[in-house]
Amino acid sequence: MTTVNLPSELAQAVSAIQPCSKRWHNIALGHLDQLTKPQGSLGRLEEIAARMVAIQESSRPSCDRKAVYVFAGDHGVVAEGVSAYPQEVTVQMVLNFLNGGAAVNVLARAVGASVVVVDVGVAGDFAPAPGLVQAKVRKGTRNFLHEPAMSRDELHAAIHTGVRLAHQAVEEGTKILAIGEMGIGNTTSASAICTAITQADPEKVTGTGTGVANDARRHKVDVVRRAVALHARELADPFALLGCLGGYEIAAMTGMVLGAAARRIAVVIDGFISTSAAAVAQLMAPDCRDYMLAGHVSQEPGHRILLDHMGLDPLLDLNMRLGEGSGAVLAFSIVEAAVRVYNEMATFASAGVSTKAQ
Amino acid sequence: MTTVNLPSELAQAVSAIQPCSKRWHNIALGHLDQLTKPQGSLGRLEEIAARMVAIQESSRPSCDRKAVYVFAGDHGVVAEGVSAYPQEVTVQMVLNFLNGGAAVNVLARAVGASVVVVDVGVAGDFAPAPGLVQAKVRKGTRNFLHEPAMSRDELHAAIHTGVRLAHQAVEEGTKILAIGEMGIGNTTSASAICTAITQADPEKVTGTGTGVANDARRHKVDVVRRAVALHARELADPFALLGCLGGYEIAAMTGMVLGAAARRIAVVIDGFISTSAAAVAQLMAPDCRDYMLAGHVSQEPGHRILLDHMGLDPLLDLNMRLGEGSGAVLAFSIVEAAVRVYNEMATFASAGVSTKAQ
Repeated sequence: MTTVNLPSELAQAVSAIQPCSKRWHNIALGHLDQLTKPQGSLGRLEEIAARMVAIQESSRPSCDRKAVYVFAGDHGVVAEGVSAYPQEVTVQMVLNFLNGGAAVNVLARAVGASVVVVDVGVAGDFAPAPGLVQAKVRKGTRNFLHEPAMSRDELHAAIHTGVRLAHQAVEEGTKILAIGEMGIGNTTSASAICTAITQADPEKVTGTGTGVANDARRHKVDVVRRAVALHARELADPFALLGCLGGYEIAAMTGMVLGAAARRIAVVIDGFISTSAAAVAQLMAPDCRDYMLAGHVSQEPGHRILLDHMGLDPLLDLNMRLGEGSGAVLAFSIVEAAVRVYNEMATFASAGVSTKAQ
Repeated sequence: MTTVNLPSELAQAVSAIQPCSKRWHNIALGHLDQLTKPQGSLGRLEEIAARMVAIQESSRPSCDRKAVYVFAGDHGVVAEGVSAYPQEVTVQMVLNFLNGGAAVNVLARAVGASVVVVDVGVAGDFAPAPGLVQAKVRKGTRNFLHEPAMSRDELHAAIHTGVRLAHQAVEEGTKILAIGEMGIGNTTSASAICTAITQADPEKVTGTGTGVANDARRHKVDVVRRAVALHARELADPFALLGCLGGYEIAAMTGMVLGAAARRIAVVIDGFISTSAAAVAQLMAPDCRDYMLAGHVSQEPGHRILLDHMGLDPLLDLNMRLGEGSGAVLAFSIVEAAVRVYNEMATFASAGVSTKAQ
């Protein structure tokens, strides 16, 4: 862990992170074994319920207020032709989020979660709008095939936005967060981060993103390989790694994970890109893993590699590869089910049900 | 397929089953490709949405009214000591369902589904209660280690109950069903059915059920092996197979799957036991598979074997092994998400989003 030249509020966020409560976790396991079901028979629902109890340090865990933060930013590396879609789609999709027409909006409505869209680096301008946080650092990162994606000040500004929004969400009573993103070109950034962190071969890590053809994917692999080689000397420090290879939306998600862990609130990770952000947060503060739930595993090959490296087991596996927070929001329904089971099921004693023959 | 000596209403249910609409499935795929996301990027949500459109033959699929039917019955084979819990737990859990304290009740409330409890063969008596359907065939099956679990008349009565309730649910406006069960001893019955259908080794098929210890599991494997051998000559006919090795609640679930397919309504299958019922339905009428969604894969080893044999891919894999319909009801939230995506997402044209560069 390194905190070289960190602004004090970032250093404070990182140093505030503690593991979640073992004592509360044990209390939760004891309660779960009293409920009218064979011990452990609700599988991962029990695991998630116990984690929520340990995170919230409450015998009545809650995910009544849920919010997904969709961070948007553009990427200089699109100049290399790494995406199937033109860069203008980032702007267009932000407007789609604000109008409620994207997948993440629909899925959020289905589970009663609010959607907050955060412009941290889109290459375009937006009028103020309800649900939009304007925190643009710059109109897109630099092309990391030639230079660091962002300066250290820009990096800190983007991380700080995520930390600040996590704090604000907690103040507003939010009980669980999800992170998602939009940014044409950002699977290339996530592939480079994954390669740098796991040392896996870019060929195995790099997928088709929004759907590049096979030749274009080979080119993308080559871009990732060259970028990681160019910045090799910087990559031992997670802050420098993020500054060289990340995006503004990725850095902001790293900040939100740090902020969530510092404020002891669960954060559901989405796909490959948000997981790359969470992986950097875990390097900065290993205990923040206690507050992360992996919502799903996507079709991007690097996602499973990164989750395994982090020791996270995804809740859903539905061949999704959209981003936006879509998989994380879908997983909210699993977390909510787990919490309700914990709070609402009858016990053997209260229901007069015989326990297992000893 | 055989219909030997079938009562006319069962023969009618079986013969009414047709594949779901290919034409509507293609219409659905066309619509999904217009929505603001890379083609196919919502993975199995798109698959499920298309299936719901094809089943309902509607451009606005719905799962507004959801119901889980929990069929309860006891099993003569418990005399062999195959379960970790005493038989009285079946009665106690039915009362727990009626009081709203069981896992399936909690999960159903979370997704807005109604719970109907059906006594098809519990070894105990119940006073009339809201949410309870009294359709008891007999107080528990016979011990299938020595004789067929039920007579042909009893089998038909139990199947008919499931068919009838599916019809009634459709009349009441239900758009999607889930099947679940409660019956101490019924993983032994499901293991025997799975062995008979897939020809897999009982050692690989038979699990710990509600949690028998290792010696008891070995005994359970032996019971399954001997039961399948005893009835070997009957097992080519799916009706005879079900009568020899099934339970009243399993036969009723088979009926509900047949009834759902005949009335063109989707039915979400739960764990190992409800899947064994669905597998028998598929033998009776192969096209009913079009109407089945596998809610999850449980920890019972036979469940995956059976799903693979049937060609079903489960939506969730959360290490659950409770039954009751708990996994199916949890999967309702995925199906609902799929349907809402289909109905509510913006199109590229309506949102002014650029499509993929060609």
